[in-house]
Amino acid sequence: MAKIKVGIIMGSQSDWATMKAAADILDELGITYETKIVSAHRTPDRLWEYGKTAVSRGLSVIIAGAGGAAHLPGMMASKTRVPVVGVPVQTKALSGVDSLYSILQMPKGYPVATMAIGEAGAANAGLMAAGILAIHDTEIASRLDAWRDALSNSIPEMPQDD
Amino acid sequence: MAKIKVGIIMGSQSDWATMKAAADILDELGITYETKIVSAHRTPDRLWEYGKTAVSRGLSVIIAGAGGAAHLPGMMASKTRVPVVGVPVQTKALSGVDSLYSILQMPKGYPVATMAIGEAGAANAGLMAAGILAIHDTEIASRLDAWRDALSNSIPEMPQDD
Amino acid sequence: MAKIKVGIIMGSQSDWATMKAAADILDELGITYETKIVSAHRTPDRLWEYGKTAVSRGLSVIIAGAGGAAHLPGMMASKTRVPVVGVPVQTKALSGVDSLYSILQMPKGYPVATMAIGEAGAANAGLMAAGILAIHDTEIASRLDAWRDALSNSIPEMPQDD
Amino acid sequence: MAKIKVGIIMGSQSDWATMKAAADILDELGITYETKIVSAHRTPDRLWEYGKTAVSRGLSVIIAGAGGAAHLPGMMASKTRVPVVGVPVQTKALSGVDSLYSILQMPKGYPVATMAIGEAGAANAGLMAAGILAIHDTEIASRLDAWRDALSNSIPEMPQDD
Amino acid sequence: MAKIKVGIIMGSQSDWATMKAAADILDELGITYETKIVSAHRTPDRLWEYGKTAVSRGLSVIIAGAGGAAHLPGMMASKTRVPVVGVPVQTKALSGVDSLYSILQMPKGYPVATMAIGEAGAANAGLMAAGILAIHDTEIASRLDAWRDALSNSIPEMPQDD
Amino acid sequence: MAKIKVGIIMGSQSDWATMKAAADILDELGITYETKIVSAHRTPDRLWEYGKTAVSRGLSVIIAGAGGAAHLPGMMASKTRVPVVGVPVQTKALSGVDSLYSILQMPKGYPVATMAIGEAGAANAGLMAAGILAIHDTEIASRLDAWRDALSNSIPEMPQDD
Amino acid sequence: MAKIKVGIIMGSQSDWATMKAAADILDELGITYETKIVSAHRTPDRLWEYGKTAVSRGLSVIIAGAGGAAHLPGMMASKTRVPVVGVPVQTKALSGVDSLYSILQMPKGYPVATMAIGEAGAANAGLMAAGILAIHDTEIASRLDAWRDALSNSIPEMPQDD
Amino acid sequence: MAKIKVGIIMGSQSDWATMKAAADILDELGITYETKIVSAHRTPDRLWEYGKTAVSRGLSVIIAGAGGAAHLPGMMASKTRVPVVGVPVQTKALSGVDSLYSILQMPKGYPVATMAIGEAGAANAGLMAAGILAIHDTEIASRLDAWRDALSNSIPEMPQDD
Repeated sequence: MAKIKVGIIMGSQSDWATMKAAADILDELGITYETKIVSAHRTPDRLWEYGKTAVSRGLSVIIAGAGGAAHLPGMMASKTRVPVVGVPVQTKALSGVDSLYSILQMPKGYPVATMAIGEAGAANAGLMAAGILAIHDTEIASRLDAWRDALSNSIPEMPQDD
Repeated sequence: MAKIKVGIIMGSQSDWATMKAAADILDELGITYETKIVSAHRTPDRLWEYGKTAVSRGLSVIIAGAGGAAHLPGMMASKTRVPVVGVPVQTKALSGVDSLYSILQMPKGYPVATMAIGEAGAANAGLMAAGILAIHDTEIASRLDAWRDALSNSIPEMPQDD
Repeated sequence: MAKIKVGIIMGSQSDWATMKAAADILDELGITYETKIVSAHRTPDRLWEYGKTAVSRGLSVIIAGAGGAAHLPGMMASKTRVPVVGVPVQTKALSGVDSLYSILQMPKGYPVATMAIGEAGAANAGLMAAGILAIHDTEIASRLDAWRDALSNSIPEMPQDD
Repeated sequence: MAKIKVGIIMGSQSDWATMKAAADILDELGITYETKIVSAHRTPDRLWEYGKTAVSRGLSVIIAGAGGAAHLPGMMASKTRVPVVGVPVQTKALSGVDSLYSILQMPKGYPVATMAIGEAGAANAGLMAAGILAIHDTEIASRLDAWRDALSNSIPEMPQDD
Repeated sequence: MAKIKVGIIMGSQSDWATMKAAADILDELGITYETKIVSAHRTPDRLWEYGKTAVSRGLSVIIAGAGGAAHLPGMMASKTRVPVVGVPVQTKALSGVDSLYSILQMPKGYPVATMAIGEAGAANAGLMAAGILAIHDTEIASRLDAWRDALSNSIPEMPQDD
Repeated sequence: MAKIKVGIIMGSQSDWATMKAAADILDELGITYETKIVSAHRTPDRLWEYGKTAVSRGLSVIIAGAGGAAHLPGMMASKTRVPVVGVPVQTKALSGVDSLYSILQMPKGYPVATMAIGEAGAANAGLMAAGILAIHDTEIASRLDAWRDALSNSIPEMPQDD
Repeated sequence: MAKIKVGIIMGSQSDWATMKAAADILDELGITYETKIVSAHRTPDRLWEYGKTAVSRGLSVIIAGAGGAAHLPGMMASKTRVPVVGVPVQTKALSGVDSLYSILQMPKGYPVATMAIGEAGAANAGLMAAGILAIHDTEIASRLDAWRDALSNSIPEMPQDD
Repeated sequence: MAKIKVGIIMGSQSDWATMKAAADILDELGITYETKIVSAHRTPDRLWEYGKTAVSRGLSVIIAGAGGAAHLPGMMASKTRVPVVGVPVQTKALSGVDSLYSILQMPKGYPVATMAIGEAGAANAGLMAAGILAIHDTEIASRLDAWRDALSNSIPEMPQDD
């Protein structure tokens, strides 16, 4: 079995509807990953454990999605030097601007690679992970190049009426 | 020496310029407190330790100030049932709206009593702590009542030109 | 009959859909409370009366929810030193940011413990009240600890597809 | 002495720097007014008294300026049917958007005639008061017409370099 | 037939869904009014004519509702000294914040009495008009007082489950 | 003397500090223009006159800058089919977002070509005018091409420390 | 066949639902146009090619619609001096404010004539194109004048209940 | 000479004041980098060239800073699969929210790892690059671990008065 390179974590079950888009991209690119619910507030010790063992377990990238006062990505970035890619989940009252600011505005020392709000951001988190892995993995690089070419080639010349 | 009832914690030295207003109020009301820098990202273990021992150390209220992706108040609320009063510190680019959303928008389970952005919010955090202590402390209740009366009485009838 | 420790007030009947979440939490934790519609603008004298008698009636915490130009929590904080927990009700045009600013941005002297916008905020208001009562009530403290443990334990390890 | 028709009230001494612009306009138009500090939170009884006697004292318009959780204009509108003109005072962190939302977003029943944020809004509050008085006062109407004509006539044809 | 004291104008037919709330209030209070579509951009000459004749036609208050780049209230305030009450109509992309800023942020000289965004604001525009008329009309004053009393008395003591 | 092709109008003298950047660009490109203060609110008749004669006077483009409730560009677009380029002037409390929304959010029928807030937007208004004139004026086209080339060539390869 | 004067380009098929409003206006005004999907990110070479040949192909105006990080209008403005009219497409999380800022806030040198967010903006893009063409095309000028007259004449005097 | 692994690019000389913080971090961590001004709008061909050769030149990470309609990071992400870390430069009117939205809200396919607005974000871009390189470079990993430890250890226990 291929070694797991990417961890997809999220603050709650409800975030999975968004974060699944990251998993889908990794599936398309043949990248092995794990998924886990890690709530910064409800399971802080799980967060601690995950962060402390991320390097030794060989994770290369952690994708973390959360909504509202979204502390998971930033707290994970505080616990490990493994690059953390953050996905702001859209919220009801504030449309995910709360999630965005909580993830993005990290102080010097603990970067979170923040993606767009919502599903497109989750898909891009998968692609960012792929891009990072592609630096030293020519197979993933080839598949990512092909994926990008296919996307470009899928665009029709002219818009069509429904 | 009076037992310490209130902990004032903050994410960095630079937050002290704001959070001092909380300490000043507690001084005015004769409430014993401690101050500590507890950075959610730079000293997460300090945060853990502080939260885990808050009840046993007899803290009644924790006042927590932070700016930007302000995770300290919410993470502290996750680690202890001691009431956490959060102060959003004003920031350069986003004026503290980032701090505010990161502190305020906590998920069900972990409330943070969020105050106004900046110095007025810090002073009010001190008063909120006093109000909580006053429930079971008639001396603090008297001093708080007097403080409030004095504030009301300080308001002149008419505005004065400078 | 247990003495009423918490008052849940709201600006209008329509706020009850949100504020019920606070009552539900207090029910779960076995905390006695009363509910009342107190409109800052339509029934200002009711607000006055409520505030003036809050201490003598033995209330420990007042939870106040309101939307739009949400003056109820702040005006209540002006009338009593009993801690006021404010819940910004989501609104149609401004999503509750109007409610939030009206509740949060109190001047020095009159703190309102502001919660997240909407239903999660109302639930957290109940938990904040419980946390305050728990300082001097070991039974409530135990129940709150158990409630928090149960929440943590309810989180599954892995997200599930619908 | 002419009867006082307009009351200019404000939440604190610091609001006078803004609200003076309303007084200046009334001076220019020869309209008699009074000024008073009426803090919704610090002097709620003063607010009550002012509102309760506004009609019997013969006030035609109340101009109310406040900043932050600016409850004064709306609470005054709740206490009297005398038209209330609200001026959102600019604030430090939120630039007066907090003041604006707190004044503007009044529920059905209690309108506040909200003006622009800051000094221009205060001046316009004076002009709005004059416009209301002008409905039944031909002298004020004439002076207001003249003031408006003078403003129009003061505009040069071409911009000038400094 | 009673003389028309209030004009309700709006930028387009679609604004009527909102502005009807102003008419309803005036109906309830027995105040005679006219309604007219006056588009600042599509019928600027109609706007000019309306503004130029407002005083001579005996209008006491003009209620103007518009959405988006809502120029109608402010342009009307430029053409007549009759008090203009502005209602920001809610919009699709920007929720009426565009309407609000376009109506509210008038330069010194031309106040618009801005109401809350949407239907509550329209109803309040009717009440503001009534309050202005009540200054010199004891019958309207009585009816407005009664309307306000009825509103206050309609508030139940306790919230009801649906 | 060359015929005037571009009119630069602005709401007040204070806007000139921003709008001068448009004039500077037109000077650089050898395009003849006129400047005029045309206040939508203070000189509405001047606006009417300007708009009504724009076509017959041979204007090809009107650049209109204004701040706050910035009605000038949109009202001008209502009065003439000559393309109107709008420049939102930065404001004190709302940073020009008020100007932006008032200019941008025009209803179907009356487009305003909105530029960035402030000085860069004013310069770009000049360039937009040049681009429009260049469609049928090969000399302006050549000069605009050269201006664009010069800008591109002015960019150094590497950043320099101050 | 009439020469194509206007190009309508958009970032994706999904933008067509919005951009069709531009095409409809051009159809109404008898202006020949082409439509094309040109994605700044997915088909950057197509963007390059389109921009490089715009002048030589005789395009007078390019209408470009895009959503989110909407780089198409600005990148096109960088590649050609043909006037670019930008339409911010409404988005899910940020309502098109992201599209707006990405299109509007162009640096000095590369103006984009930004229209209102969404469908009204797209329609206005068509009218802006017509206004630009009308400078040197009396037939289009006549049709645009007639279109504008018809719009003005279509406004009823009074609002109708549904 | 060590091979260059990181490219720091920026839209203009003025961005260097912000982006220098990224270079400083890379210097501290002994990571070789190049700096270049690459303007998406003024030097699009330079952007093209840089993107097209990024893989073959062996770049592992591209840090891209820009302000306003900040198209550089996203356009670079469209041209190469090398991970792009974006830094929103603070702007005058919109405080960098324009930069943020233009960089963050990328469509599916082209992620940009967005950092906080301004200097802290630039420093974190350097640390993110280091974290990515550390996956396969034990020396950088050690230095990054040490840097993080030093930051944690630098935090004093108690705040100090100035």
